[in-house]
Amino acid sequence: MSRDALFRQAAEALGFAPDGEIRGGGDYVAVLRDGDTLYLSGQVPRIGSTVVVTGRAGAEITLEEAQRAARICTLRALALLQRGLGSLDGVRQILRLTVYVQCGPDFTQQSEVADAASALLQQVLGPAGVHTRTSVGVYQLPKNATVELDLIAAAR
Amino acid sequence: MSRDALFRQAAEALGFAPDGEIRGGGDYVAVLRDGDTLYLSGQVPRIGSTVVVTGRAGAEITLEEAQRAARICTLRALALLQRGLGSLDGVRQILRLTVYVQCGPDFTQQSEVADAASALLQQVLGPAGVHTRTSVGVYQLPKNATVELDLIAAAR
Amino acid sequence: MSRDALFRQAAEALGFAPDGEIRGGGDYVAVLRDGDTLYLSGQVPRIGSTVVVTGRAGAEITLEEAQRAARICTLRALALLQRGLGSLDGVRQILRLTVYVQCGPDFTQQSEVADAASALLQQVLGPAGVHTRTSVGVYQLPKNATVELDLIAAAR
Repeated sequence: MSRDALFRQAAEALGFAPDGEIRGGGDYVAVLRDGDTLYLSGQVPRIGSTVVVTGRAGAEITLEEAQRAARICTLRALALLQRGLGSLDGVRQILRLTVYVQCGPDFTQQSEVADAASALLQQVLGPAGVHTRTSVGVYQLPKNATVELDLIAAAR
Repeated sequence: MSRDALFRQAAEALGFAPDGEIRGGGDYVAVLRDGDTLYLSGQVPRIGSTVVVTGRAGAEITLEEAQRAARICTLRALALLQRGLGSLDGVRQILRLTVYVQCGPDFTQQSEVADAASALLQQVLGPAGVHTRTSVGVYQLPKNATVELDLIAAAR
Repeated sequence: MSRDALFRQAAEALGFAPDGEIRGGGDYVAVLRDGDTLYLSGQVPRIGSTVVVTGRAGAEITLEEAQRAARICTLRALALLQRGLGSLDGVRQILRLTVYVQCGPDFTQQSEVADAASALLQQVLGPAGVHTRTSVGVYQLPKNATVELDLIAAAR
């Protein structure tokens, strides 16, 4: 199956419209290309105009819900890459993923939350989805989102 | 008006000496250039030797004060780019801006704080100031600063 | 003394086996090279399979212990660069270091923690270890680590 088809399948499984509008939040752009390097703005788990997973992981939000948030952020990132490049076939490599998890004081499974994003990148992009990663636990995120992630990628 | 003049104007309006010393905090450098890519170290809202906005946004610090902090951090970033390149005309594009906001537990307007930085970059640099962005809410920042930001830029 | 010998000396002084296994945490890789740019995943102060400094700086963890954590993270980063490039002589420049410190609400010495990492990079790599840097105070880190850091470097 092509990457674009794998993306469509993953998006539909999570209730994310693969061709829907990707609403941003502020006075900036979602993607910029510099040579072969693509920078993506931070993505929160927004579907349409609603941030669908909010609150602190390890307090009112379970690990599983936080992982769902990470997957939705990743779908947004993939949709932006697809639109920026015409097709996900244009991605040579995901270089760097940074995952911010809004958490309670004792929640230490940021890496397990980020694994959901990492796995989805690899499920859709194959070896091109392999990446380096940093995950941290933050105190708050825009719109009370449970997860925010950004990435740097290389285009073919 | 030239970018350098727009910078001077914006700096003076915020009480920031555009030619003053840019004091750093630790055992590192403020700017590094690798090919056409410029990396800037994290900037706190320091004027001279004083961090002028400290404390948590959404607790003892209002949104407006946090936005002022973001603008002062941005002026420092612009001053460093100007000195590194001789003139702000040397900036081809701001690629990535990361904004860290020290906040209270329920403050979710990190994006609105970061908008003040984004707007100033575009006011001074025009289309070259358009960028990708991530904003997060952190638990503390060096010197109790309310905002810290860093960026990656492309030189002409 | 060569960089590789300086690294071995620093590692042994901190109880870090310079040739030991570098265990990672999740579904990602530790290093990726894109052209001459090297991205390193976030490193916590793990020796073997144990994260050796955990908890909040400024609460149960002193500044000195947090600095030790930063040094161990840095040794891991250096070990990964050495293995990725065959020798630390392959490092042209450390471009960007980001240091996340898990801290108490009033701990504002993130920069002093990060200085321990910055100094060690320069001790081992000399001028090639000079870098730009951002340090922030976060609410939690994977495995309750006191410090996590990542970096971007240029290869010769």
